[in-house]
Amino acid sequence: MINITLPDGAVKQVPSGTSVLAVAKTISEGLARNIISAKFNDTTVETSTTLNTDGSLTLYTWNNDEGKKAFWHSTSHVVAQALEELYPGIKLTIGPAIENGFYYDVDFGNHSISEKDFPAIEKKALEIARGKHDFTMREVSKSDALSLYKKQNNPYKVELIENLKDGEITFCDHSTFTDLCRGGHIPNTGIIKAIKILSVAGAYWRGDENNKQLTRVYGISFPKQKELTAYLELLEEAKKRDHRKLGRELELFTFSQKVGQGLPLWLPKGAALRERLEDFLKKAQKKAGYEMVVTPHIGQKELYVTSGHYAKYGEDSFQPIKTPKEDEEFLLKPMNCPHHCEIYNTSPFSYKDLPKRYAEFGTVYRYEQSGELHGLTRVRGFTQDDAHIFCTPDQLNDEFKNVIDLSLYVLGSLGFENFTAQVSVRDLNKPEKYIGSVENWEKAEQAIINAAEQKGLNFVVEPGEAAFYGPKLDFMVKDALGRNWQLGTIQVDYNLPERFDLTYKGSDNELHRPVMIHRAPFGSMERFVALLLEHTGGNFPLWLIPQQAIVLPVSEKHEKYAEKVLKSLENHEIRALIDNRNETVGKKIREAELNKIPFMLVVGEQEEEANTIAVRRHGGEDFGSITVNAFSDLISKEISSTLKSF
Amino acid sequence: MINITLPDGAVKQVPSGTSVLAVAKTISEGLARNIISAKFNDTTVETSTTLNTDGSLTLYTWNNDEGKKAFWHSTSHVVAQALEELYPGIKLTIGPAIENGFYYDVDFGNHSISEKDFPAIEKKALEIARGKHDFTMREVSKSDALSLYKKQNNPYKVELIENLKDGEITFCDHSTFTDLCRGGHIPNTGIIKAIKILSVAGAYWRGDENNKQLTRVYGISFPKQKELTAYLELLEEAKKRDHRKLGRELELFTFSQKVGQGLPLWLPKGAALRERLEDFLKKAQKKAGYEMVVTPHIGQKELYVTSGHYAKYGEDSFQPIKTPKEDEEFLLKPMNCPHHCEIYNTSPFSYKDLPKRYAEFGTVYRYEQSGELHGLTRVRGFTQDDAHIFCTPDQLNDEFKNVIDLSLYVLGSLGFENFTAQVSVRDLNKPEKYIGSVENWEKAEQAIINAAEQKGLNFVVEPGEAAFYGPKLDFMVKDALGRNWQLGTIQVDYNLPERFDLTYKGSDNELHRPVMIHRAPFGSMERFVALLLEHTGGNFPLWLIPQQAIVLPVSEKHEKYAEKVLKSLENHEIRALIDNRNETVGKKIREAELNKIPFMLVVGEQEEEANTIAVRRHGGEDFGSITVNAFSDLISKEISSTLKSF
Repeated sequence: MINITLPDGAVKQVPSGTSVLAVAKTISEGLARNIISAKFNDTTVETSTTLNTDGSLTLYTWNNDEGKKAFWHSTSHVVAQALEELYPGIKLTIGPAIENGFYYDVDFGNHSISEKDFPAIEKKALEIARGKHDFTMREVSKSDALSLYKKQNNPYKVELIENLKDGEITFCDHSTFTDLCRGGHIPNTGIIKAIKILSVAGAYWRGDENNKQLTRVYGISFPKQKELTAYLELLEEAKKRDHRKLGRELELFTFSQKVGQGLPLWLPKGAALRERLEDFLKKAQKKAGYEMVVTPHIGQKELYVTSGHYAKYGEDSFQPIKTPKEDEEFLLKPMNCPHHCEIYNTSPFSYKDLPKRYAEFGTVYRYEQSGELHGLTRVRGFTQDDAHIFCTPDQLNDEFKNVIDLSLYVLGSLGFENFTAQVSVRDLNKPEKYIGSVENWEKAEQAIINAAEQKGLNFVVEPGEAAFYGPKLDFMVKDALGRNWQLGTIQVDYNLPERFDLTYKGSDNELHRPVMIHRAPFGSMERFVALLLEHTGGNFPLWLIPQQAIVLPVSEKHEKYAEKVLKSLENHEIRALIDNRNETVGKKIREAELNKIPFMLVVGEQEEEANTIAVRRHGGEDFGSITVNAFSDLISKEISSTLKSF
Repeated sequence: MINITLPDGAVKQVPSGTSVLAVAKTISEGLARNIISAKFNDTTVETSTTLNTDGSLTLYTWNNDEGKKAFWHSTSHVVAQALEELYPGIKLTIGPAIENGFYYDVDFGNHSISEKDFPAIEKKALEIARGKHDFTMREVSKSDALSLYKKQNNPYKVELIENLKDGEITFCDHSTFTDLCRGGHIPNTGIIKAIKILSVAGAYWRGDENNKQLTRVYGISFPKQKELTAYLELLEEAKKRDHRKLGRELELFTFSQKVGQGLPLWLPKGAALRERLEDFLKKAQKKAGYEMVVTPHIGQKELYVTSGHYAKYGEDSFQPIKTPKEDEEFLLKPMNCPHHCEIYNTSPFSYKDLPKRYAEFGTVYRYEQSGELHGLTRVRGFTQDDAHIFCTPDQLNDEFKNVIDLSLYVLGSLGFENFTAQVSVRDLNKPEKYIGSVENWEKAEQAIINAAEQKGLNFVVEPGEAAFYGPKLDFMVKDALGRNWQLGTIQVDYNLPERFDLTYKGSDNELHRPVMIHRAPFGSMERFVALLLEHTGGNFPLWLIPQQAIVLPVSEKHEKYAEKVLKSLENHEIRALIDNRNETVGKKIREAELNKIPFMLVVGEQEEEANTIAVRRHGGEDFGSITVNAFSDLISKEISSTLKSF
């Protein structure tokens, strides 16, 4: 008999040689039907794997990321088989699962495939899947493995096998298809009910541009057809909401080859949006006792040697800036914390002066390879809504709660209602990995966990995920398309106070080290605006959007009245403009719709006579002709339903 | 007879050989008495110089900068004589006039002088001056000149003479003293009535640190004793108002050796002040139709090759930033205009879309040698309140007027009432120096002059002072100490639109080049804050200062009432804080005075009962116990008397 420990701590005694699936059945028949993958002692196994030692077993269904991974990796075998059958003589290489689906890198020889070939591939793969073939793993000797692929004239698999040792080599079989594979499959092809080939792209063998370029076939699969349909709709929607596309259409930002890749230029409308976001946070930060500071975008190399950043990142970053006459070297600042530490060091503080909370919209520069740049989410220069709190260890819990309050205010006001939190703490078994006293770590971890509990956060604690210099809390935010974004890290730091020799005088009249908290609710203005664009599809919250309404006179005759309306809107603090171009109202409405202006206010004969405005919501809702006062009430009501109080 | 043309165009016919002074006498005896220097055909001459050809003559009195220069340079001869008499055997080198006074560089051998020696030097120099010795120039041969200084064993003068040719060498005599000198003296030592030795400092011979270090003796002199007294009072006041001293005392900014020289760190109070200045300008700019943009602090080298800045400044600037993996070079941006040109180039514009006015508080970096850095006025990184207006040539006059309006609003609201303007135009005799068509230049110069006239500016036109790429207008602002600052340049530019190939579609459907205007009413936030500190002595205008008042409860008992007062102040939009430290009110008032907080609001028993505040103005003025309402009226009144309308 062996002892199998389940994630809830329960221990099942089963005979040695029992399969994973059989263990699942001892728990529940229903569960067993849904099990598609498993992990035994940190190793991914098949449901058919037999267990011969004591150990921990985790069972996965389609609803777990690990389950999806097995599902998609298994589908890549099926698609590979379909490709071999459709295009005899092709050479297969590798076919892993990825975040959404899988790919298979294939050497098609002289052949090439394109979108028009996808339906045939999908059809063939689905036919194979319907055969309900079991996936079975078997160990093979190196020589047998090599001989199979040499016979197939496949240099890629041969190369892979040559780097493995006897005893490490396994094949996976299903139907008539065999592939070199480490394992991690679903029990049977039959549960794959929907397969979609998404795209093809070029990919160098082993990612090395000196090697041959292969064809990467991307696909995804689901246990239900309707899940595929929903996914494709989501893809379509994501394409529409791509922040690069919306950024162009709404004239928010641009890039210039001459200025350089990954260096966004914020156009007037984007800069106005960004400024409103900054003002929103500034106001809240002021209430929360933060003080703004301003620091330069460069610092002497020495500053980053002190902070430790140079040793860690210097070689892979933008290189030092020399001066023409003096022996100095500066670096573009990759973060604001060293500058803020130097500000803290300007004055001697007592415990009564703390916490000090220095905030800055600080633009930082980090080198990224040009191939990795992506719109506003992966850039080389970005502005962090940064702040550093310097406090006593006893103040940590309160400060953490205050930062959580601020983060919840930011997320809530911007329409992110769906999020969880993760508290990253030490690995207690590896104390050597961490700097700072055990006492401080215990205090800090407890302070964070208490703060998260006191604030009623839905959070998990992840041991071993803390940085070497302190524990942290992250928010994981789901956007309107169900995608996860990590936002608003709150990081405790014992390292920089040490390195910059920061002190305060305690009530005991002795010098002590303050604790430092790094935090940025938006993360960066660039990434946050990208997220906001994709989350809202460009329909920003009414309180945030720089232009809330546009006044549309039906003809030149009504321009004067339009001006009067605008003045009245201004008095109600409604942000509006007039479109008095010589165009039809129909055209003006269409353009306002494209520009995603929330309210169109048409004024003509009737409105001028009644001293009203004809209000039309973006998307078409008609509020009829109402007074500016009534419109103002409407706007105030919508704003108070989204903008939280702080 | 020769024809002497005077600055007003009048021509005097005098016999050849007439002295400058004699010409002055033909104009007026009174004028002749005050003439202390002159310029004949672009060359500085003595009043005793005889004129032998036709030419233009300008006469200078003490009230001209050129007159002062002659006065101070002449005094340096007198002081040199005094030094020789007091310290026999010293070696004289050079002794020019400077902006305020003069210096003489002297090799004192083994001797050294300090402040305690100044009275004796001043006394001796004044004795010499009282001798009413004429300054007379004479030409000497190179061999005679060399022999004099070789006899005196003075290698410095020998070196100077060796670099001159026969016919170029002149001596100036007065009393028993002779000096190698190019000329430019007052008639007679007798008009020097007050001499002050200000300081001594080390200075390398010819500014080369490989040479011997000499002693630079700084001094100043005046035609009246009371002018010296006033000057010394001014110096004392300037020392008190030194922005570096005030910046430290008011905790506005600091520098860090680790961050780097010339890179200011704005502390919370300084950052708050700066933000209020920015918000003030932003609001006015919004009204004036500007749009904010945001651009990165670096740009590819290519960008500055296009703009022409790299060819002109590249070698003497911060050196290019390389990346670790790609063949790219970036530069810290020394100005914002190339980025704004790239933004303009993002969209095709028609004449109906112009003007476009892009504004940015853009931080730029320019290398300065460390020896030249000075507080906030000479730094390596600074934030310009920059904007670029792209308009049609026909719009130039209106745009210029708008920018003048904005500049006048800024200067007026910040208490600068004393200023003139200078319009810099082409030198019509050197057309080859300028780019752009003659037609455009004429149009632009006329547009600026018309704008200056229409706005009623007190301005002068300076031919030949325009940049090669366009004419401009500068404001010359006098601060509270009477010192001049150049502020708020408005520069027309034909060059960058050409280099960046900027276009707009005209009403003729053809592509045309827009004209560009660069402007920055503050210049830079750093320099402007320095100026404002020195102009106001740290007593900022009430509308601007981040903290207008401080509430001072006389004891703990009144803290609750103090909180109530604060809330009420907030409702009146008065920016205040409470000082509820456990200190005496006396001490709190003293600190508030030092921190230059405009109003101290003391609250005790009496105030709490009467629901009032005891209002004390910075400096001591007592307003007695009044209600918050009455105080709010007081503040509003003061603000509306300083903050102009726009």
